[in-house]
Formats: sequence, C-alpha cells, structure tokens
Amino acid sequence: MVLLQDPSIKYTKFDPHLKLEDRQWPSKTFSKPPRWLSTDLRDGNQSLPDPMTVEEKKVYFKKLVEIGFKEIEVAFPSASQIDFDFTRWCVENAPDDVAIQVLAPCRVPLIKRTIESLKGAKRAIVHIYMATSDCFRDVVFGLSKQETKKQATECTKYVRDLTKDSTDPAILKTHWLFEFSPETFSDTDPDYALDVCESVKAAWEPSLENPIIFNLPATVEMATPNVYADQIENFCSKISEREKVCVSLHPHNDRGCAVAAAELAQLAGADRVEGCLFGNGERTGNVDLVTLALNLYTQGINPQLDFSDINSVIDVVEKCNKIPVHPRAPYGGQLVVCAFSGSHQDAIKKGFKKHSERKRKMEEEDKKLGRKQPRVSHWKMPYLPLDPQDIGRTYEAIIRVNSQSGKGGASWIILRNLELDLPRGLQIEFSKVVQRETEAKTRELKTSEIINLFEDKYVVYPENDGVNLRKIDAFELTDYHSHNNKEAGKRTVISTIKNNDRTIELFGEGNGPISAFANSLARHFGKDFDVVNYHEHSLGKDSNSQAASYINCRIGTNPPLWGVGINEDVTIAGFNALVSCLNQSVNKGFVNLQN
Amino acid sequence: MVLLQDPSIKYTKFDPHLKLEDRQWPSKTFSKPPRWLSTDLRDGNQSLPDPMTVEEKKVYFKKLVEIGFKEIEVAFPSASQIDFDFTRWCVENAPDDVAIQVLAPCRVPLIKRTIESLKGAKRAIVHIYMATSDCFRDVVFGLSKQETKKQATECTKYVRDLTKDSTDPAILKTHWLFEFSPETFSDTDPDYALDVCESVKAAWEPSLENPIIFNLPATVEMATPNVYADQIENFCSKISEREKVCVSLHPHNDRGCAVAAAELAQLAGADRVEGCLFGNGERTGNVDLVTLALNLYTQGINPQLDFSDINSVIDVVEKCNKIPVHPRAPYGGQLVVCAFSGSHQDAIKKGFKKHSERKRKMEEEDKKLGRKQPRVSHWKMPYLPLDPQDIGRTYEAIIRVNSQSGKGGASWIILRNLELDLPRGLQIEFSKVVQRETEAKTRELKTSEIINLFEDKYVVYPENDGVNLRKIDAFELTDYHSHNNKEAGKRTVISTIKNNDRTIELFGEGNGPISAFANSLARHFGKDFDVVNYHEHSLGKDSNSQAASYINCRIGTNPPLWGVGINEDVTIAGFNALVSCLNQSVNKGFVNLQN
Repeated sequence: MVLLQDPSIKYTKFDPHLKLEDRQWPSKTFSKPPRWLSTDLRDGNQSLPDPMTVEEKKVYFKKLVEIGFKEIEVAFPSASQIDFDFTRWCVENAPDDVAIQVLAPCRVPLIKRTIESLKGAKRAIVHIYMATSDCFRDVVFGLSKQETKKQATECTKYVRDLTKDSTDPAILKTHWLFEFSPETFSDTDPDYALDVCESVKAAWEPSLENPIIFNLPATVEMATPNVYADQIENFCSKISEREKVCVSLHPHNDRGCAVAAAELAQLAGADRVEGCLFGNGERTGNVDLVTLALNLYTQGINPQLDFSDINSVIDVVEKCNKIPVHPRAPYGGQLVVCAFSGSHQDAIKKGFKKHSERKRKMEEEDKKLGRKQPRVSHWKMPYLPLDPQDIGRTYEAIIRVNSQSGKGGASWIILRNLELDLPRGLQIEFSKVVQRETEAKTRELKTSEIINLFEDKYVVYPENDGVNLRKIDAFELTDYHSHNNKEAGKRTVISTIKNNDRTIELFGEGNGPISAFANSLARHFGKDFDVVNYHEHSLGKDSNSQAASYINCRIGTNPPLWGVGINEDVTIAGFNALVSCLNQSVNKGFVNLQN
Repeated sequence: MVLLQDPSIKYTKFDPHLKLEDRQWPSKTFSKPPRWLSTDLRDGNQSLPDPMTVEEKKVYFKKLVEIGFKEIEVAFPSASQIDFDFTRWCVENAPDDVAIQVLAPCRVPLIKRTIESLKGAKRAIVHIYMATSDCFRDVVFGLSKQETKKQATECTKYVRDLTKDSTDPAILKTHWLFEFSPETFSDTDPDYALDVCESVKAAWEPSLENPIIFNLPATVEMATPNVYADQIENFCSKISEREKVCVSLHPHNDRGCAVAAAELAQLAGADRVEGCLFGNGERTGNVDLVTLALNLYTQGINPQLDFSDINSVIDVVEKCNKIPVHPRAPYGGQLVVCAFSGSHQDAIKKGFKKHSERKRKMEEEDKKLGRKQPRVSHWKMPYLPLDPQDIGRTYEAIIRVNSQSGKGGASWIILRNLELDLPRGLQIEFSKVVQRETEAKTRELKTSEIINLFEDKYVVYPENDGVNLRKIDAFELTDYHSHNNKEAGKRTVISTIKNNDRTIELFGEGNGPISAFANSLARHFGKDFDVVNYHEHSLGKDSNSQAASYINCRIGTNPPLWGVGINEDVTIAGFNALVSCLNQSVNKGFVNLQN
C-alpha cells in the first residue's frame, strides 16, 4: 500500500546555488572523444568486496593498455604496502606513452610516500584531493573553507617541490602531470570550488603544454544530470587561463544517470572523463567507460578505445572484479543483441536483409566503377543501434524463440541455419507450431529444437541423407522419369515411392512435372492433390548448389499443408515437397495408407 | 591496440531534425511524481529468455498492486492464448482503482481480439501502436507516411466503436482509456509524429476528464537524453488541446541514459512514465521505475510508489524474471549501501554520529516545548543519498572491511557491535592490525573476524565472562581495595592478579587509583608503567550500564600499548585496561613473567 505518512519529507530538493545566464550545452553535440582515465584499479578496486590480487591487477592493467587507455589510475600508494608495490610494478611495466596516475589525500607524509612510488616513471600523474563540500568539511573533517583552501594550496606546492621543481635529475626524467579534485564538487558551492581551484592553479603554475587537471567529481550524484552539466559549464566559463586547464569528470551513478551526466558535461565543456569498465566503482559505480565510448562510436566518432573484442574485455573484468556484467548492460550485456518478441525479430530480419542487399549493390557499383576506396554502407537497423560484429559478437545470438515470438523469430533461425527462406504462409504456420511447443514447454526453445521441429514436420531431404529416417512411416521418392506428351500438350511423370517395404508405382499427367506428380498421387490415393502455392530458391552459391521447394497443397477438402523438398535436382525437390505433404496427410488421416 | 582503420565511419551522428527556439526544460525542477505505468508483464516479460509462467505473472501482478501502481500493462492478448487468458485473470482480479492496459498493433482483427480480452474490466486502457519512423516504415512495413497515418486513424476509430461508442451496456460499464504510440518516436520526424497524433486525437475526441494518452517511445535510444527532452518539449508545446492529452514516456536504455531521458523529458512537460522494475525490458531494458521513484523520493517528493520493503520487491522480480538485480543497481543493488574504502567508512561513521546527535537534540527540544508534530531532521549523510532504513535495508550491511579500509571501517564495526567508541590512536593502531590480516588472507574480513581480532588483542572483560579464557597465559584481576593516604595526599591500591595458578599481590600509590595500580605493576615487574592516554565512556543506557576504559600505556622504553577494560565498576574497567596492556607486554616479551 502507498504510505499514508510521507517519509520523503526527510529529504530536500537539491539546490546547486547556480543559475546559468546563457546556457550553451543543450544545443551542442559531440565532435571528438574525451581524454580517458581508467580508475578501475583504484576507485574500482577499492569498492570490491574481494579486491583484486596482485596477479589480477596485472592482467587488468595489461587489458587496459591493450584497449588503448593512455592514463590509468592504479592505486592509493600511501594506503597499503600492496598498493605501493603494485604502483612500482606499473611504473616498471607501462608503455612509454601510458601515464600512471596515483591518488593521495592532502597530507604531507602521505604525498611524500605517494610520489616515492612513482620514481622512474616515464609519465606520471599525481592526483590529490581535498573535500570542499559543506557536508564533508563540517561532518567529516571539521575544517573551515579557509583552512581547506590553505591545505589544498600548500599540498599542491609540496607536490610541485617534489616533482617538477625538484633538483634531482632522476626525478626530472619523469614527465609530471598534476591533478586536483575538489571532492564532492557536485555538492560544493560553485564559487568556492572555483576559489579553491584558482588558488591551487596559482600554486602549480600550469602551462599550455602541460595543463593542470581539475577533476570535478560527482562523488555522489545529487541531482538530474543537467544540473551537473550546468555546474561544469559554469566552471569552464569562469576558471581563468582556461587553455591551461584540463577539466575532468568523475561521475558516480547514485541516481542511475552517470553516463548522461558525463555526456552532458562534455557538451558543457569538459575535456576528460574518469570511470571504470562496465561501471564498477563505489556503491552504484563510477561512470561506465564502455558505454560512453561505444555511444560515441555509434555517432560516427572513433572513441580511441578498442572494444572490437568485447567478450575478451568482459572476461577480464568479470574474473578480476568477481562482479558479473549485467545481462542488460549496454553493448556488453548478454541479452542486448537478443530479441524474443515476434515483431522485433521480424523487423531485425528484414533489416539485415535490406542491409546486405544495400551493401552488395554498393560493392557491385564500386567494382564496376573501379573505386579504390569502397564506399561505406551506413548502419540503419531496427532495434540494433550497433552492428554486433563491430564488437566481436555474432548474429547467431541475436534471435532466440519463446512463446512471445511471432513468425519472425522461428523463420529467422531456419534462414540462418538451413538457408531456407520460408514463404510467408509457411512462416505463419510454423510460428504456430513453435508457439504451441514453447507454451507446452513453458520455456524458450533452443535453436536445435526449432530446427528439429521444422525438419521433422516439413522437410524431405535427398535420399539416404539420413534425416528422414526419423519418420518411420514416411514415403520416399525412389525414382522418376518424365516425358512430353506432345499431342495432349502435357507432361507425363512416372515415378516410384516407397514406404518401408511397400513400393508404389505412380503415373500422372499435368501442365508441368509438379502438377503431373500431384495428379499421379491423386490418382493413386483417390483424393485431389491441389497445389495452391509454390516457391523455390537455390541453396548455396556455387553451381553444385541445391534447390529448395516449398509447396502448399490441399488434399481432398482438408486444410492445405506445407511441404518442403531439397535436392540438387529442382524437379525432385518439388516432388519431395509433395511427398512431405503426403506424409503429413497420412499422419493426419487425410489419406488412407492402404490405398 | 587502437584500430588504425576507423570502423566508426559506418555510423552517422543522429539528427533529430529539430531546433528548439526557446528551450525551457533545463531550468525546471520536479514538483510532483508522474503517472506510472508498469509494463513489466508486457514489455518486460516479452524480453525474457524464460518468460514468466502464469503463476509467476500472478505473483508479479499482485506485487505491482501492492507497490501502488494504478496502471499496469499486462499482455499482448492477440499474440497468444496465454496472454489472452492472463488478461482475463487480471480483469477479474484487479482492484477497482487499477486500470488494466493491453497492447495491440494497428490491425483490425487483432484489435477486436484485444478488446474482447478486457470484457468486464472496471478500468481498461487500450494501447495501440503504429511505426512512424522512416527506418521502420521503409524497412519493416513498406508503408508511406500517408498510409501509416490512415491506418493509425482508422484503427483508433475502430477502437472507439468497440469501446466508448459501443451501444452494448455491458461494454459501457468499463471506464475506457485510450493510448496511442507512434513507434520509435525518438527516430521519427517531429512534424510527422505530431501530424499522426493530431489525426488520431481527432478520431478519438478526448475530453478534459478522460485525456488521450500519447506515448512517445524512445523505442531505441538514439542520442543524448537532452535530445529526447527537446523532442518531448517540442511535442508538448505544439500538440493542440494540450489539456486533453497525457504525454507518456517509454524510454529504452540502449545508451545507458534511460533514467536521465525520463527525468529530463518530465522536466520538458511529460505527464506519465512507462517502464519496468529494475529496468527489465527489451535489450538493455525499459527505464527503471525503482530508480525514477526513489530519485524523486530523495528530493523530498513522494513518488506514490512504496519501496519501503525493497528486498521483498527484489525477491519477486528476481524469481519471476530469472534475471538478477545487479549488485550496483541504484538503491536496490547489494553493494550500494556498502563502503569498503577507509575514507568512505570514516565519513559515513561520522555522518551517522552527527545525524543521531542532531536527531536526539531535536527530539529533546520538541519534548521540552511540548510539540505535538515533531520536527524532521533532514538527511545529510556523506556518500549515502538515501537512508537505507527507508527502503527496509539495514545499517549493518553498510560497512565491510577489506585491505583498502583505513581506520574508519574496522572501528565502525566495533562501535556498531560492541558499542565501543575507540579513541583515535586506538583506531589507527587497530586499522593496521586489520590491514595486516586482510593482506595475509587477501580477502575481506567478516564482522565476526574483526570483532574476534579486537577482543583477543585488547579487551579484558569482567571476571568469569569467559571471553578471556582464549588467552591461556593472561593475567586477570581477582580483587582490589583502595584507600586514601591523607598524609601523602595519595591513593593506595592493594590488589591481586592471577595467572593460571600463580597469584600476585600488588601494592602501589598514586594520584588516583589508575596511577596507583600502574605504579603497583611497575613496582612488581621492575619497569615503568606510564599511562600516556586515557579514555572512558559508559556502555548502554540504564543505571546498570557498564563502563569501557581505554588506556595507552608505555611499559619501560617500549612503544606504548593500547588496552581496553570493561566493567560495571569504572575503576575495575581502568585496571582491566592496564591488565590488557600487561598481558600484551608479556606476549611481546617486554615484561618478564617470572618477576
């Protein structure tokens, strides 16, 4: 029941203390990817019930490098010996173009230890933070605004002394970058956050070549993501020497809007994003970098991160984090490239058909015109914003069939697996067969079950193929010959069909071989065999390809039946389709086997 | 490696064909909850690998009613007998104030069957859809804009004939509502979507009392959520007779922004949201209604949905959907109210302390002033946007301790479980003990392990308590008496301590009992016992409460040790703290037991 008392009165509307005069970001769109910072090994790892072992961290680090990350936050080296040692390993094993980032609070002894951990790095980012929000200053640290700013500024100077201002030539071999986070920026008075950052910037003295990184975290997501974008636009427009500042984002997902917050805040001017693969991180997680990168990708912007083999990324993430990627996680989730409902399956099937037609046509034209640079066929697919192949996923996984699937799903499975492009009437009939089966089983059918269901009911394969041996009482065609009866303008077909040990000789005439064979069946079994629908297509691409025939045949006054025949000989394929109809009619009792 | 070729060229930037002149939504905030529509049993169920059984659907439906949903989409009745039958069950079992919604495509025979399924309902919503986007019209249906609009309009008239315009008194007993979805609205030319909806609205003729529902789905999420908000604001500002229209949202989560899209689109004017619990639904899911509702809640707006027992909701959702709620799902995820890192744990611990102090103070004032309506202490907690108790989760789950936890985590566990509020120095020392243990075990410690670690090392409980029996070689205090030595201005303490069968008589003098007892130990063991730090507080609330004493004692020239003593007699508690230091010093070899 809805509560009569209202417990929500305990909470108040978030007030950002900010009113943008001339808001720009809602009219902007993306044009390039941000600088990426993976904090999987720091913010991600510290939030795991079972933190990674050192071996797992190494595997994870290598994967991050492989994906293309150039800035990786690896540890909180002053917090434990494990973190310190792992930082040392990263420093010694990172490629030259990958910057190692480490985090420390604004406390002198901890900063000292932190910078020691980076000794010998090619590129290093010292990241210090200081809580600036009222809630954190008052409740956690008991520091005034003035004290907080002073501590942040002094610690910045201290970092400067130990790094870029050092007189030790060994220290100066490292390319030092500096990052400062006013913690819980999203809950900090905007003017005060700017005040602290101006003071820190003055202490660091960044250059155009080596900008200072101001990370503006939504440590806790406080409001709708447009508010965060406003906060970022405000900061970007007011900080001095903007060109010497790299504005970095660090959104958490408490309100489920971290991806949106990171996107809108990029529109608002931010240059860099910190997050984790598949959104690991404290509580609801850091922003998911896989989603952000592939969101750019589907807008035609290369994210400069490589997820072309997303399954191998998922493997590493799941093994090291011991937290599964959710089946519905964007792009990576198991169920994301599946469609179970009939209308979705039907639409995707049609989409794939159109797409490959369009692509083939383009390729033919390109070939004809001798184009060296082939054109690109743009991706326009119902329900699939990304081609699963681009991230190493297969089409096979796309459609599974359950009781909610209409005709599209099952016939897609048949098309993908048997290359049989069922006529619409057969699609509808078969979908009902599948639906009855799924309702009886109250579960999804496996691909193999759908194929068996189809083959058992409809298909007559070439002799000795073995498949039809499943049907004990089935007839099979053993021989036929046909000739023209020129006088009557008709074709004569003489054939033999066999059922176990019983052999029947058939004779019939018609306008073509199919009608002649149908008439021969009618003559023998004493019922009309009326072909109401007929389709045929080749299977495979070479000259030895087989043919598939689909016949809808009314026997006597019963509802018409669909049969499918497959053979290298297109005539036999058609006959076999009729044999399939005959066998079904025997099973249904439409035809007396003893005739 | 980053790809040298650029596969992202296959994709193009989404163009909404829309430019808002005077965009309003970014400056708005929420003031009330939307109308909610759960489509768990329709869009959610059709996207499950294993759809719900009829029994599971019934359990789910009852839970939705219990949570407070007044509009529930239950099925696609024309798709299968199962769906039809379940609709009948809902019609027969729904409370009078709950509207049953069902979906049908714009096809006359299917609409007829759909409306049949609703016979006898108190409140029913007939929901029909028609694909309006170029991609769907061209690829899937092969229908022109004109044909599409005509079909939508005619089907609307048909629904009208069978429902509110019916002459059958039995039909007119139902309160009929009507919903139309221009499918893939987010990818439809905005003017065309309006054109179709105007035509549908004219065919239905809504009233102020019974508005038409236009559901504007982001069938596939195409762009950043601000674009969807623009589309909704555009629609809301241009549709005629806005007051007779309920604008409904149906966002999917392909870009991970469904929650944001639903929120920004509400700011843009939408009245109603369709989604599923914990974001089940096709592919990446429908928008998550739990997150949307509790996001409102934390802004002081009662969502009119009751998640005060979220665990029971999770139970039903996981059992019926057979898809787990992700550990990091906002609000419901297992890990969302956990903090593993030391600084977070420390902050939360301080936050809880401040919160209960503030609350107690308010309650005392309210009592003193005789206020009948007690005031509300607003929730302001580092890292926790929602009080876990409000959704039936416990504080106990909040903090677990791993190798990343600093002093905060472990001492929080001790505070919560033993009521011992450790002095800062002891917090730091104990956190190192815990860290060594977690590093050795390379896993998180259980609460019970942390408690044992603490008690074994530090605590001397009252005699015969049993706890100290774990320490075989430990001393215990068996008796003491003290008197004033008025001449010397000193207190004399005479006591007995026992170690196994050995009993030692002690005698000492000091400024108070603690220093006298310390001196008696010094005298016996031949080393200084120098109390460098002393804390004490009561345990429990009544007059029989015990006292806890914390003593930091330097023995000889060794580093000082912390000891903790607990007793009803505050003096004995202090003595026991010193006995704890003595025992530790014996273990460390600082003191010779044979003295």
